[in-house]
Amino acid sequence: MSVNDRTPVTVIGLGAMGSALAEAFLGAGHPTTVWNRSGEKAAPLVAKGARHALAVGEAVAASPLVVVCLTTYDATCAVLEPASAELAGRALVTLNTGTPEGARRMAGWARERGARFLDGAVKNVPPAVGAPDTLLYYGGDREVFDAYEATLRVLGGDTVHLGDEPDLAALYEQAVGGLLLPALLGFFQGAALVSARGLKADTLVRFTTKWLEMIASELPAIAAEIDSGDYTRPRATVGVFHQAVAHELQLGREADIDVSWHLPMYEMLERAIADGHRDHSVSALIETLRKPVPQA
Amino acid sequence: MSVNDRTPVTVIGLGAMGSALAEAFLGAGHPTTVWNRSGEKAAPLVAKGARHALAVGEAVAASPLVVVCLTTYDATCAVLEPASAELAGRALVTLNTGTPEGARRMAGWARERGARFLDGAVKNVPPAVGAPDTLLYYGGDREVFDAYEATLRVLGGDTVHLGDEPDLAALYEQAVGGLLLPALLGFFQGAALVSARGLKADTLVRFTTKWLEMIASELPAIAAEIDSGDYTRPRATVGVFHQAVAHELQLGREADIDVSWHLPMYEMLERAIADGHRDHSVSALIETLRKPVPQA
Repeated sequence: MSVNDRTPVTVIGLGAMGSALAEAFLGAGHPTTVWNRSGEKAAPLVAKGARHALAVGEAVAASPLVVVCLTTYDATCAVLEPASAELAGRALVTLNTGTPEGARRMAGWARERGARFLDGAVKNVPPAVGAPDTLLYYGGDREVFDAYEATLRVLGGDTVHLGDEPDLAALYEQAVGGLLLPALLGFFQGAALVSARGLKADTLVRFTTKWLEMIASELPAIAAEIDSGDYTRPRATVGVFHQAVAHELQLGREADIDVSWHLPMYEMLERAIADGHRDHSVSALIETLRKPVPQA
Repeated sequence: MSVNDRTPVTVIGLGAMGSALAEAFLGAGHPTTVWNRSGEKAAPLVAKGARHALAVGEAVAASPLVVVCLTTYDATCAVLEPASAELAGRALVTLNTGTPEGARRMAGWARERGARFLDGAVKNVPPAVGAPDTLLYYGGDREVFDAYEATLRVLGGDTVHLGDEPDLAALYEQAVGGLLLPALLGFFQGAALVSARGLKADTLVRFTTKWLEMIASELPAIAAEIDSGDYTRPRATVGVFHQAVAHELQLGREADIDVSWHLPMYEMLERAIADGHRDHSVSALIETLRKPVPQA
């Protein structure tokens, strides 16, 4: 495909992210058709050269590549249902949040209508769409990805195909994103500790930023331990974390902060120690996660 | 103090970190006296020009600045006890892990012996000691810090005085470090999810690294919300996280992974919603952390 090829693209769903996607395609010179349930969201894009389809079927029929950015898979199916006939033979790309199970259902729905399917995720905020280091990953039909890779790369220079299974982007969303809330709670707890002493949460920011960089720098070694199952050359042991959490529980109680969310982590460390992992790398905790406790 | 001033320094405790500290002082041309309970650890430093004191009192007496890097405050007091007389009038700096309460006891112990006191932390691994961006922070006697700042900066270019209270470094250690285990567990859980599908944990590393960078980039805004107590301009709401954790619990059960450690987070989100924070920024969870639930 030559660099002058400009695949026509349709973007359905013009929230902040959908509008950013359409704008990126327009900026790169792709004939871009847009559709949104409430039409007024299309106006700024039409001003930039987008074609505004009046019906969803017309929008789908306008391009071989149809990118849908709605809130859920259910919303996507409901919106696209009237365009079922037009979907046959086209490449359908969904970019919404949802579970792997939802992505598999979505893939089945697309297959029934003869569409080829990719599900993806934009790992960044709308203003970052189109930047060279903005990451998007996709799971699903490799041929579709290969055929439209240059066009999809317009949305972010760091565009990755995870594999043929249509739920891989949703799976990675959960696998990567699941770290966010625990990490934030860790920060909030730190902020509660220092603010109880009259110090500002802001004083933690640069130290925590360095700490996050340190954690990132350890991830390759941690992943290698997990992938090999060899936890015998610890950089930090289960036992050390066990002691640290015990301290934290104590400190939280002294500072009158809710530390209840640490209790199951403490119990997990205790189970890991009972399984003989005290002197192993803390990565051995994955073995404990893989052994669910029976529900009481 | 001119750049040619080379304050004599004593380093007590020659584990990996203590040895790295002594080496940095030697490298910067400071007359360096070392002492360790088992003497053989001193040999490599003596080869580089360190003076090896035979008794701890002799080590303390050799320098106006005494840096101690042992495992705990209790170990530090026990080791320094025979040097009590020699400590009077000197600057004592401890660099070990411990609780704020332990640091306050340590400060009292030093005060009783007439020593001026700083407690600090090296926020990095031993090989990073001496690098321009290596962070060390200290709490305690500001005059001691000012007098020896140039010498302390030999250990890391990013050297900070947190304030006069001697337990501030220990407090910040807890406040910053408390994020580590929850973040690691988030990564382990992601690794358990992808490895259950036959994919390597290693495939998560670069995505998680970007995710940690994203979290770091959000910290200033989060800290500002916490410091102002204004959660009404959310970038991500309590309600959105509440839904996300519900999904995660579901997904973990489907994948047969131990998700028990998410339950108290889920309950915390429920309490925040009950307190009217559903549409507020997720930072509002700090208000929930500040309201401990009564122990059952």
